[in-house]
Amino acid sequence: VRIIDQTLLPVEERMLDLATVDGVAEAIRSLRVRGAPAIGLAAAYGVLLSLELYLGSACPRRPEYFFDREEGMKPFEPDSITINDIRQTVQSASSVLAGTRPTAVNLFHAIGRMESAGKRDAADARELCRLLADEAFAIHEEELEVEYAIADNGSPLIEDGMRILTHCNAGGLATAGYGTALGVIARAHEEGKRLTVFADETRPLLQGSRLTVWELKKRGIDVTVLCDNAAASLFAASAVDAVIVGADRIASNGDTANKIGTLNLAILCEKFGKPFYVAAPLSTFDYGITSGERIPIEERAVGEVVSIAGHPVAPPETKAYNPAFDVTPASLVTAIITELGVIERPDCSKLLGIKGVKHR
Amino acid sequence: VRIIDQTLLPVEERMLDLATVDGVAEAIRSLRVRGAPAIGLAAAYGVLLSLELYLGSACPRRPEYFFDREEGMKPFEPDSITINDIRQTVQSASSVLAGTRPTAVNLFHAIGRMESAGKRDAADARELCRLLADEAFAIHEEELEVEYAIADNGSPLIEDGMRILTHCNAGGLATAGYGTALGVIARAHEEGKRLTVFADETRPLLQGSRLTVWELKKRGIDVTVLCDNAAASLFAASAVDAVIVGADRIASNGDTANKIGTLNLAILCEKFGKPFYVAAPLSTFDYGITSGERIPIEERAVGEVVSIAGHPVAPPETKAYNPAFDVTPASLVTAIITELGVIERPDCSKLLGIKGVKHR
Repeated sequence: VRIIDQTLLPVEERMLDLATVDGVAEAIRSLRVRGAPAIGLAAAYGVLLSLELYLGSACPRRPEYFFDREEGMKPFEPDSITINDIRQTVQSASSVLAGTRPTAVNLFHAIGRMESAGKRDAADARELCRLLADEAFAIHEEELEVEYAIADNGSPLIEDGMRILTHCNAGGLATAGYGTALGVIARAHEEGKRLTVFADETRPLLQGSRLTVWELKKRGIDVTVLCDNAAASLFAASAVDAVIVGADRIASNGDTANKIGTLNLAILCEKFGKPFYVAAPLSTFDYGITSGERIPIEERAVGEVVSIAGHPVAPPETKAYNPAFDVTPASLVTAIITELGVIERPDCSKLLGIKGVKHR
Repeated sequence: VRIIDQTLLPVEERMLDLATVDGVAEAIRSLRVRGAPAIGLAAAYGVLLSLELYLGSACPRRPEYFFDREEGMKPFEPDSITINDIRQTVQSASSVLAGTRPTAVNLFHAIGRMESAGKRDAADARELCRLLADEAFAIHEEELEVEYAIADNGSPLIEDGMRILTHCNAGGLATAGYGTALGVIARAHEEGKRLTVFADETRPLLQGSRLTVWELKKRGIDVTVLCDNAAASLFAASAVDAVIVGADRIASNGDTANKIGTLNLAILCEKFGKPFYVAAPLSTFDYGITSGERIPIEERAVGEVVSIAGHPVAPPETKAYNPAFDVTPASLVTAIITELGVIERPDCSKLLGIKGVKHR
């Protein structure tokens, strides 16, 4: 599994090859790979990685030996491996990956799909491995198609000349490659609309200034970064026409968890009468919970706030409040842009009425 | 003029001795000394510093020689100096100091007072210098008395057990020594009220995490820092009872300019039904302008946003929107706490009715 180490951007574009499930889990936990859809994909491939030694033909590498915890290096004998071995491996990898980060539901959706694939009927271990590999690649391909569909559905909301504020990074780095919020912006740009994008820097980890600016510049889209606390001033100066963000989990009533600071922008949109759009695949929807209050919010380390690039910016032993996400109530969401269409003024009945969604 | 270099806090507590007007101007421009009242004091002493060579007895140092630009080191002969020399020196120092930062009106108030003092009748240059020195020390002493009065007037608004959010630094570092917003908090704490203070880190220069946390810890007050964008989440969790901030300039209708991000907190207070207090001396009021739209807002360098502690956090040549202040409309201000009393729901007629205020 090859990822770009997002913690080093924009200073360094370093690719990381992750060889183990633990490596994938570490990369998710430390935000080397981040963004709800991208976390889901990393987890699906992480499950696959755990099978690599069993996998044979579905896998780019074909070792002739594999490492057995008890017996050390052993010749690779796929025929000696049972369907049950595979299922146990999937289960164990899933459990490690599910423990990495709590908020983005795409992670659990992707793991759930891999677990289901692992339960399918198969003639032997090799065939089951192929089914699992097919599932991981299908998740990736579907996710990319979904992003293009979100961009198609969202672009009509973006008018020529619009000044759009976004938060955190909901671009290709956060997804299967095209982006959700930034995908909508990119599609509008490709269609020839002239856009001005403002990117909140997004403390504490600065995904806005580090990643969103980097992506938009690569795409040739005009972008200006600002400190998160300057957004109100931008609204007061009538310099923002719309806000568009991604999502990490959407409850069945439309309440949306996204990067800390998102709620703030939704409140500013309400105050200044501007639309607040959420662009998110249906894999972000969690029909298992009925309200945003029930979305688990990850609290991250104090060090992310009180030191920057290794330099202390607060006195020793300073306490910090550092939730990674906040919840925007559905009442503040103008529309959710999904692959199946735009849900205006989302609520429970509209979300439950989406065609093709499987409910838990 | 001795200051603590605030750009180095909290890592290093380094005192700086400023020996020239240009040195004071540089310290104000680069925020080594900052906070509206403190900038005013630095400017008053800056004017005094320009007179130091003339000043003789009013000054702690009594050089026997002074440096003349054209003639180099010359014996100190105060009797050869005219009243007009002093007035020209005051004028020239005032002009340098007035060009440092545009928003805080205390700067212009203090300079105006020094200029007026320079125009007073005096028997000779030495007496005029003494009048100017008296004025600078009076500004300092009055400002400190004013802060104690603000604390006295504001403390009754603070209830036992309150959870208070503040922004930037309106403490002793920003003022004559006791603080405005933090002075109110400190007084309530001294009176035995149990308080929880949340300090916005206040990007880009982190006066909240670097200075406010440092001051509150020294005063033994419980404090937790948060990224500016996490304030909405704190309100949504019902964890904030009130916001209290300082001010850099207040128009005659009550519109208040303060550190960028303040408007955001006022909007959150309105949204969540919490009081939004401004603590500011009357030297912060500008009766020369009728509305916040006319307050000049300083736009600071892009580098403050796109690099942190010398590390780039955005791609090269990234544009940044970086105003140092924003304007909170009077309609969002629950009360302004001044040395003369608390002005609830401030408006033009209430502000013009304040006893003892000189109107331009």
